[in-house]
Amino acid sequence: MNTSAEMYLARRERLRALLRAHGLDALLVSHAANRFYLSGFELHDPQCNESAGRLLITVDGQDWLCTDARYLDAARRLWDENRIFIYGGDAAGQLRSLLREKAAGPIGVEATAVSLELFRKMSPGLALRAADGLVEELRSIKDAGEIAAMERSCALNHRLMEWLPARLLPGRTERDISWDIEKFFRENGASELAFANIVAVGPNAALPHYIPGDATVTENCPVLIDVGGRLECYCSDQTRTFWVGERPAEAFTRTLELVRAAQEAAIKAMRPGMLTAEVYKIARGVFEAAGEAAFFTHGLGHGVGLETHEAPSLGARAAVALKPGMVVTVEPGLYYPQWGGVRWEYMILVEEDGVRAL
Amino acid sequence: MNTSAEMYLARRERLRALLRAHGLDALLVSHAANRFYLSGFELHDPQCNESAGRLLITVDGQDWLCTDARYLDAARRLWDENRIFIYGGDAAGQLRSLLREKAAGPIGVEATAVSLELFRKMSPGLALRAADGLVEELRSIKDAGEIAAMERSCALNHRLMEWLPARLLPGRTERDISWDIEKFFRENGASELAFANIVAVGPNAALPHYIPGDATVTENCPVLIDVGGRLECYCSDQTRTFWVGERPAEAFTRTLELVRAAQEAAIKAMRPGMLTAEVYKIARGVFEAAGEAAFFTHGLGHGVGLETHEAPSLGARAAVALKPGMVVTVEPGLYYPQWGGVRWEYMILVEEDGVRAL
Repeated sequence: MNTSAEMYLARRERLRALLRAHGLDALLVSHAANRFYLSGFELHDPQCNESAGRLLITVDGQDWLCTDARYLDAARRLWDENRIFIYGGDAAGQLRSLLREKAAGPIGVEATAVSLELFRKMSPGLALRAADGLVEELRSIKDAGEIAAMERSCALNHRLMEWLPARLLPGRTERDISWDIEKFFRENGASELAFANIVAVGPNAALPHYIPGDATVTENCPVLIDVGGRLECYCSDQTRTFWVGERPAEAFTRTLELVRAAQEAAIKAMRPGMLTAEVYKIARGVFEAAGEAAFFTHGLGHGVGLETHEAPSLGARAAVALKPGMVVTVEPGLYYPQWGGVRWEYMILVEEDGVRAL
Repeated sequence: MNTSAEMYLARRERLRALLRAHGLDALLVSHAANRFYLSGFELHDPQCNESAGRLLITVDGQDWLCTDARYLDAARRLWDENRIFIYGGDAAGQLRSLLREKAAGPIGVEATAVSLELFRKMSPGLALRAADGLVEELRSIKDAGEIAAMERSCALNHRLMEWLPARLLPGRTERDISWDIEKFFRENGASELAFANIVAVGPNAALPHYIPGDATVTENCPVLIDVGGRLECYCSDQTRTFWVGERPAEAFTRTLELVRAAQEAAIKAMRPGMLTAEVYKIARGVFEAAGEAAFFTHGLGHGVGLETHEAPSLGARAAVALKPGMVVTVEPGLYYPQWGGVRWEYMILVEEDGVRAL
């Protein structure tokens, strides 16, 4: 058994302890990033409605990798062939037979990752229970190897942000700049973008969900860049808002200072044990004191790792305690439809005695 | 109302007729490509476990676009603001209230696209029924505009395949070639790849699911290329298997001829009314006659359009009748672990009086 196989097994052992604590005999793991985290098998599904495979984790230590024949070769490279279950056209029915055979008691399924269709076909005669968040809870605490990978992934994003301003030239479109960014990530080690680039010029920067289009950089304008790459499987996520031109508009400078102040206040306060909603409130408090809180229209941040958006959330109602090993974004923003907006984002690692930016 | 708004409305009217025929008062559309097909709103979800929004289509003609605040601006650009429903943190509960208010009788949900979690939270007090495949049925018949877009999307793929052989040089890795292909698509009009590239050198060509890696092209080897781009929203999907070097190995030439013969026989037989399983059998029959059918390990093809894999399937048990307007791949292949394999793929449009390759 090689080192990475041992790492995946250790993760499954931690999951097994959680299953016992929840009175489950087994868990059918369907969510792609959870599957990969526990096995190294296929980080992505081919389409959202097509699974590359599922894991059956049982408390008795027999773990099954279930997939279709297309993936048999990939499965063999990292899993005991005696525990590979290949299903055919009736995947649900065949999974149901496997579950009946391998687990007598309650079996957990991820209700947010299993379709109603699959559930209905698998459930007759089985004690299936919704059991979400168990693997996500493990994933939210990054180990040393994951943190090292995330540092390298973030380092590439920092290099991008240093390289980028010279490319923000008047006349260039958001779409051109977005493609430059993607090529930079891909040609410097990233396997893909972590999420669709946001490159937003002028008033477009006021739109929290924005797809780069034909708008062009002008002589004096803000450009909001929110991008990330996937390097060594781990996502980065950074936002910077640049001013193109000699002299930033006063509204831009004032907004930038306020956003950075909110970000700094939140990061300074973060420590293990603090509730995520508290962190949100601290950033929001800075905007409230300045009378601008109405223009802060989203959460403060989110966990990041194998997925761009994962646990925990730093929203107003997100009451998870920060723990060492968590990596979260802190990304306050203020948005004004007339001229645009400013968002600034760091990825913050929670450590035993405080936090640090990756 | 502009032309594209009229097109989306006409599609919803066709769906409404199907809802009436199925005794449904409404359909909650969750599958991303179905949502886009009926509204033009967001072809992709941000992650498989995060929805960009859902449509509620009712038989009384009141159609709702349901999404969260991030997408309000995008929604306003293409939907009557009075029929945009913005949900907050409790999306399931809020959708349930909307459904209760807008539909008295049975409401269809796409059981393959709705999570067990969402279904459980939405269903109390509502008559929810699984109603899959209705929008997929409409989508399987492409209209003139869709066919024109698919022709342009395919034309780019053909250009790629002509440009490509000069790049298959000894010493280059599969990964390098894959990135060249992606840049070609992106720099010539494609918004993204339609699916992850397959670039497989030598024995890797025998693996139906293969991720381009460090294997290098050698002086004499087969290279299987299965790639597609998304252009004007529509996917292309083509496979060619090249021989690098002066003189193809005899096994390669023989296999290539057999694969092309199977493909030609299938395409020649295709016509409206023929069952998809029949088409599969014709290709398989050619391999059987040559004693090689055991090495044809997958279906013959699949529908393609807004998604790379969509209805109908050309598998052994797929009994859908071909209809004018369907676009399907015909991609027989033979695979030999010792040296590799050959697959050849065309996209075939079914017309009133026969078929033609795009």
